[in-house]
Amino acid sequence: MSYFDGITPVTFEGPDSNNPLAFRHYDPDEVVMGKRMEEHLRFAVCYWHNFAWEGGDPFGGRTFERPWFGDTMDHARAKADAAFDMFRILGVPYFCFHDADVRPEGADFAENTANLEAIVDLFEEKMKDGPKLLWGTANLFSHRRYMAGAATNPDPDVFAFAAATVKTCLDATHRLGGENYVLWGGREGYETLLNTDMGRELDHLAKFIEKVVDHKHRIGFEGTILIEPKPQEPTKHQYDYDVATCYGFLKRYGLENEVKLNIEQGHAILAGHSFEHEIALAQALGAFGSIDMNRNDYQSGWDTDQFPNNVPEVALAYYHILKGGGFGTGGTNFDAKLRRQSLDPEDLIAAHVGGMDVCARGLKAAAAMLEEGGLEAALTDRYAGWEGADAKHMLHEESLEDIAARVARDGVNPSPVSGRQERLENHVNRFV
Amino acid sequence: MSYFDGITPVTFEGPDSNNPLAFRHYDPDEVVMGKRMEEHLRFAVCYWHNFAWEGGDPFGGRTFERPWFGDTMDHARAKADAAFDMFRILGVPYFCFHDADVRPEGADFAENTANLEAIVDLFEEKMKDGPKLLWGTANLFSHRRYMAGAATNPDPDVFAFAAATVKTCLDATHRLGGENYVLWGGREGYETLLNTDMGRELDHLAKFIEKVVDHKHRIGFEGTILIEPKPQEPTKHQYDYDVATCYGFLKRYGLENEVKLNIEQGHAILAGHSFEHEIALAQALGAFGSIDMNRNDYQSGWDTDQFPNNVPEVALAYYHILKGGGFGTGGTNFDAKLRRQSLDPEDLIAAHVGGMDVCARGLKAAAAMLEEGGLEAALTDRYAGWEGADAKHMLHEESLEDIAARVARDGVNPSPVSGRQERLENHVNRFV
Amino acid sequence: MSYFDGITPVTFEGPDSNNPLAFRHYDPDEVVMGKRMEEHLRFAVCYWHNFAWEGGDPFGGRTFERPWFGDTMDHARAKADAAFDMFRILGVPYFCFHDADVRPEGADFAENTANLEAIVDLFEEKMKDGPKLLWGTANLFSHRRYMAGAATNPDPDVFAFAAATVKTCLDATHRLGGENYVLWGGREGYETLLNTDMGRELDHLAKFIEKVVDHKHRIGFEGTILIEPKPQEPTKHQYDYDVATCYGFLKRYGLENEVKLNIEQGHAILAGHSFEHEIALAQALGAFGSIDMNRNDYQSGWDTDQFPNNVPEVALAYYHILKGGGFGTGGTNFDAKLRRQSLDPEDLIAAHVGGMDVCARGLKAAAAMLEEGGLEAALTDRYAGWEGADAKHMLHEESLEDIAARVARDGVNPSPVSGRQERLENHVNRFV
Amino acid sequence: MSYFDGITPVTFEGPDSNNPLAFRHYDPDEVVMGKRMEEHLRFAVCYWHNFAWEGGDPFGGRTFERPWFGDTMDHARAKADAAFDMFRILGVPYFCFHDADVRPEGADFAENTANLEAIVDLFEEKMKDGPKLLWGTANLFSHRRYMAGAATNPDPDVFAFAAATVKTCLDATHRLGGENYVLWGGREGYETLLNTDMGRELDHLAKFIEKVVDHKHRIGFEGTILIEPKPQEPTKHQYDYDVATCYGFLKRYGLENEVKLNIEQGHAILAGHSFEHEIALAQALGAFGSIDMNRNDYQSGWDTDQFPNNVPEVALAYYHILKGGGFGTGGTNFDAKLRRQSLDPEDLIAAHVGGMDVCARGLKAAAAMLEEGGLEAALTDRYAGWEGADAKHMLHEESLEDIAARVARDGVNPSPVSGRQERLENHVNRFV
Ligand SMILES: [Co+2]
Ligand SMILES: [Co+2]
Ligand SMILES: [Co+2]
Ligand SMILES: [Co+2]
Ligand SMILES: [Co+2]
Ligand SMILES: [Co+2]
Ligand SMILES: [Co+2]
Ligand SMILES: [Co+2]
Repeated sequence: MSYFDGITPVTFEGPDSNNPLAFRHYDPDEVVMGKRMEEHLRFAVCYWHNFAWEGGDPFGGRTFERPWFGDTMDHARAKADAAFDMFRILGVPYFCFHDADVRPEGADFAENTANLEAIVDLFEEKMKDGPKLLWGTANLFSHRRYMAGAATNPDPDVFAFAAATVKTCLDATHRLGGENYVLWGGREGYETLLNTDMGRELDHLAKFIEKVVDHKHRIGFEGTILIEPKPQEPTKHQYDYDVATCYGFLKRYGLENEVKLNIEQGHAILAGHSFEHEIALAQALGAFGSIDMNRNDYQSGWDTDQFPNNVPEVALAYYHILKGGGFGTGGTNFDAKLRRQSLDPEDLIAAHVGGMDVCARGLKAAAAMLEEGGLEAALTDRYAGWEGADAKHMLHEESLEDIAARVARDGVNPSPVSGRQERLENHVNRFV
Repeated sequence: MSYFDGITPVTFEGPDSNNPLAFRHYDPDEVVMGKRMEEHLRFAVCYWHNFAWEGGDPFGGRTFERPWFGDTMDHARAKADAAFDMFRILGVPYFCFHDADVRPEGADFAENTANLEAIVDLFEEKMKDGPKLLWGTANLFSHRRYMAGAATNPDPDVFAFAAATVKTCLDATHRLGGENYVLWGGREGYETLLNTDMGRELDHLAKFIEKVVDHKHRIGFEGTILIEPKPQEPTKHQYDYDVATCYGFLKRYGLENEVKLNIEQGHAILAGHSFEHEIALAQALGAFGSIDMNRNDYQSGWDTDQFPNNVPEVALAYYHILKGGGFGTGGTNFDAKLRRQSLDPEDLIAAHVGGMDVCARGLKAAAAMLEEGGLEAALTDRYAGWEGADAKHMLHEESLEDIAARVARDGVNPSPVSGRQERLENHVNRFV
Repeated sequence: MSYFDGITPVTFEGPDSNNPLAFRHYDPDEVVMGKRMEEHLRFAVCYWHNFAWEGGDPFGGRTFERPWFGDTMDHARAKADAAFDMFRILGVPYFCFHDADVRPEGADFAENTANLEAIVDLFEEKMKDGPKLLWGTANLFSHRRYMAGAATNPDPDVFAFAAATVKTCLDATHRLGGENYVLWGGREGYETLLNTDMGRELDHLAKFIEKVVDHKHRIGFEGTILIEPKPQEPTKHQYDYDVATCYGFLKRYGLENEVKLNIEQGHAILAGHSFEHEIALAQALGAFGSIDMNRNDYQSGWDTDQFPNNVPEVALAYYHILKGGGFGTGGTNFDAKLRRQSLDPEDLIAAHVGGMDVCARGLKAAAAMLEEGGLEAALTDRYAGWEGADAKHMLHEESLEDIAARVARDGVNPSPVSGRQERLENHVNRFV
Repeated sequence: MSYFDGITPVTFEGPDSNNPLAFRHYDPDEVVMGKRMEEHLRFAVCYWHNFAWEGGDPFGGRTFERPWFGDTMDHARAKADAAFDMFRILGVPYFCFHDADVRPEGADFAENTANLEAIVDLFEEKMKDGPKLLWGTANLFSHRRYMAGAATNPDPDVFAFAAATVKTCLDATHRLGGENYVLWGGREGYETLLNTDMGRELDHLAKFIEKVVDHKHRIGFEGTILIEPKPQEPTKHQYDYDVATCYGFLKRYGLENEVKLNIEQGHAILAGHSFEHEIALAQALGAFGSIDMNRNDYQSGWDTDQFPNNVPEVALAYYHILKGGGFGTGGTNFDAKLRRQSLDPEDLIAAHVGGMDVCARGLKAAAAMLEEGGLEAALTDRYAGWEGADAKHMLHEESLEDIAARVARDGVNPSPVSGRQERLENHVNRFV
């Protein structure tokens, strides 16, 4: 019997449906800008928040009552059954997982590895007619051994344990045909500078990632290696603070062509940015990889990982993604969790249905904006001056002295023109 | 008659003095870690907040009544008289200025230049027995022509005007023996992504800075070129967001050896960091240049530019500065302004006296911590494992496979050790 | 010739219009829940941001070039001409003003009063076929005399000057048929507790408001007295921090039946709340009055006063307003300003058109939600247990001992039920 | 054998000691302003963070390895042994606890009560020569039954369970001679307004507190009932947001004379206030009760509950406390937890020693400021104008009309005077 007994696969019923477990906007086969929505959005469901998280928060424990909660391989198999049931009900093309989500914690590395491999066997079977793997990853932050970091731990044995673990997870991802591999450095940061050698830790982190990249090539994994910016939480300061910080780190160590970014809305907000800023910046820097489409509450100072629900915001994110050519190996992962009071199986399904519909509406609005072309035309117009030969010559050839001489000689004295922000915002509101 | 009539030069009277216009902790000649405090701290007073700012805020206008407020060269000369009077009273070794602080705004570039040059003549005279110039800079943000950026303006003529202006300011700085030149990109950012081509703007900004670096070399200026991180305000998003972002930008365009950072406490706070984080990170990245020692109010979401007053915080900043070898061409600038209700000449003096004393206490505490050595010993101890040959071999030579094989074979299973954060915080409290 | 020459009155053209100066959603005569939209929304345009603000920010001065900028009565009359032209073009039923927006600053109270009265004469004339006055108010924050507060100033003469000024403004509001009078205490707060006697200042503020209430009754003004919560800016801490704080203040001094609240989205955000929270709380406390429908940028820590543009957010605000019975004397004021780069007359019009359309969409979505009834039904269901006689008895009659005895006796041991948050969010997304 | 084996009672060794487990500033018997420091500070150690919390955070589980972790009465007794050992080592006069900290969770109310009573028996014994109870409280937030609130739960049975539980905890507190009883409403708030009837929930909360007050009187408990402001976390919005909100709530329901506030630095920060603001406001409102002296990290958006370590900040808190007459039944509780990496018994002791020393330094600085009198003199001076008969007459007798007539007649036109903020900050820095 399935945990989701009585819930049938979710289908597209159109905007007038009031069935809470139907898609009203997401029709996988609808063609948008020449491509099916499913291929645009590349939805993935995460294993951790849906199946491993128990509903705790800093002031309370488990609220969910899932039959698969427990520490045995049997529990892990029951969990996998529920997970793949849900993937099938939602009809998502992808899922994502950490090792620790899917297998019981072993007493040591060998047992962890054996447990993981047994589950990967099971996944291989289940994936035959189920979703594909968008990305795999290793949980290098929950176990107490990682409390002071994994790659950046002061203890080399922790670095070793983490490295060994990533090897098994990258191998598993490869074996399951994963399209990306993610490194989220949740404990790669510090609690206090008083006990931290930041320069050394950054060097170690780079070495660690280099080894991952080497291993990827060695085993012939053709997916993308992704790191995921987040400014803080769990640590006071995380090294992968935001897109700009990650880029600087990768560039410093010559990794910028090997590693791309998985950008999460909630982490953008925590770092003081808008989600579209982080996406647009990653694109400008050639670092865009994938997204975690889960929002933060604007009034909460921690990572709330909520399902997306604001269509205008989501539309701006997809606008930049589409404008940049859409996803390559990346996709739209929901690194989103139910509120801990949402106890029912229906909540799990409905939350995803709502999130997928919000994304579908956002994508269609973004496509409509691009097809209409008004925003791009306004942009071209605004920078048109830079297309002139004189401007290009100045930019590329002239020295400060040359320019100063010309400004003085010609009495260059520019007048500003309207930035038209409200008019552009109104324009966007025609589509969302 | 001086604006500061009746106020005599401030002298060191020792901690028991209750003279509000005496130093109680800053004795320029006191030797700390083998160097006079004056040479360690390298205090600079800024021209803008002290002499050009009128006390306005977003909801109110001028509160200060300074006899030199006005738009003529006579006003500018009266302002310079007051400024150098204050420098003399405080006994500071340095000052800093923008062009727009010291000269009236002209009708065009030529008039601006002429006005600036006349003031530079005056400064040359005044500096004979007065302070030196820590850094000069150009105000590329107040005039309406810069409302959409200077180097990143969509209009190439604004880029040209800005470039020409920087030429004059860098020349002036060179002529006055300035030890650094600062570029604060207050309008290099955006109000809305809807009208912004971020990739293009970043390229233009890099070109602009390249030209500044070229000009520096052309004229033989041996000071340091500095950029100043700030996340936002006046723009919604500023390209020089924080230290990590600036570093990534410089590295991307190959400027990291030519340009260093001027780090401000208030800007660190606005970007979600501690001041000591930004300093320590800049040092780790080889990008540390100078500091603006003015704090933000922790409860205000904008740049309050207050004088420093919290000794323990200031001590941690100088701890990292001293640990990294102290200032080179940089120094301790007060980019600080009086609260707009602090109307009196005495307020101007007292605010600096208090700030300088706080810095002196911070410096001495930092030096004492370094001389005692407990923090460094704890750090060495914490990372000692990485000094072993095996750890180094793993870091530099081993692949993930090598490491995984060893972890499996040896059953590597590390146990965490205490991070001792509270004990280290207590240790610091012995000195502050 | 009008400042808005060439711009004709804005009309409703329907959602398919791509005329940027037409309403696509706001049709004043469309009936929503039995009332015309104009009567529901009660739009007001503010005088200050549109006609008095010059485009400055903390790092730059005037960007706008309006022919009426200047300090004479002629300028004030030209400004009024432009303002009423704009009111007519937009077809708004209301406007709002401060004394300092509409008259030149005089040398003293008498001149201020004379200037104001002359403008009120002019307004009386212009209002014959123009908009009505939603509310008037006095600017007690811009002039330097108010730098340390108006009602809470340490100098009783400032209290007096402020009180006298409010008298003239309340009289003017009364004469112009204003429907409310607002007191925004922008400087009623402190910069530092070190120089502040908070208990005394709160007492003075209460006395001041009492006098305003008395004067209202004395002159027969039947509008509502409103105070406007804001946590900070310009002061570090403002006494009218948020709705809950204002309520506690009014209740403490017995003013809760005389004074209601004007709630601004931007101020809600600055205080750490959502806009709908502030509205719903004010309604629960019987303190709801009116709204300022201008948003803050979520990434900026100061008051950005932007035009609303996010329909889902606006819909939640109107949902609570409609659920509470709609506006009484209150309305939807745009305390919103153009971005300082939006220089053109068209920007002024377009920004309002866009904002009004967003509000119209929000209102219609809110009405649809209420008419559908799903949210209210879910709420009734959730609290149904409290409608039982036993629950009411417990709440109103039983002591802790009674309850403990019953819990022990009956083994009361409740199980939680799902809070269904995501399902409710999905439900809302059917309407926005 | 004690968990703290080898650690001897902490004694005062003076500022020059470098023993990390000695007091350098806290000498309980030192007389400050006529009272022993122990009687001023009234230190309490909390049970929960020290003995019940396991070191988890949202991304990781237990890091601490305490022999008493477990769910039996034997574990609870071992925990009590360790706790009282620590109280004795620290020499603190008080401790605080929740029911859930000290007893195993039972299957139902009856078992919870029996478990609690058994532990209270044990505590009675242990307290004979140990610390007293500053306050007791009930944990109404960790168990899943409370996930949607306790007093504000939509299910009346949860209200009942909570009320019954508070009865047992207040009885226990009374029996143990507790000097206060705290209600922290950690789940009294909401996750989403969509499923929340705020007006109803506030009414229920008031009824709940009324019952607690009634029970207090019924059993003759003479301690103070305290509520503890916190803006959010665990809920998105907590009803006891801050001091002003709590005051308004109490006043609305006529509880302001029966209930006072327990103010925490970290919660003040989360709500956008300084700690001293919250203390000073509570004093101005007659609502000051007690403090939780644990700080938040200024860069973290959640409750970090760190031990205090910044003397200047702590000094300002005690300055307001002393100025208001010091504690009545309240005290200085450390609601502080070790960082989760601080694993050792020594960390527990050292953290408290450091925190107590910081408080002692803060108290002595505050006392010195008060004894010197400069701040109070400046304050008296600033408001001196209000002591005149005319000012008092205006405030209490005159109408707006009277005042306006006088302002017009006399040409009242006040000039501002300096607020002297920097000078006052410098003054404070003479003492900290
Ligand atoms: Co997240
Ligand atoms: Co994520
Ligand atoms: Co600044
Ligand atoms: Co600066
Ligand atoms: Co506002
Ligand atoms: Co407003
Ligand atoms: Co806390
Ligand atoms: Co607390």
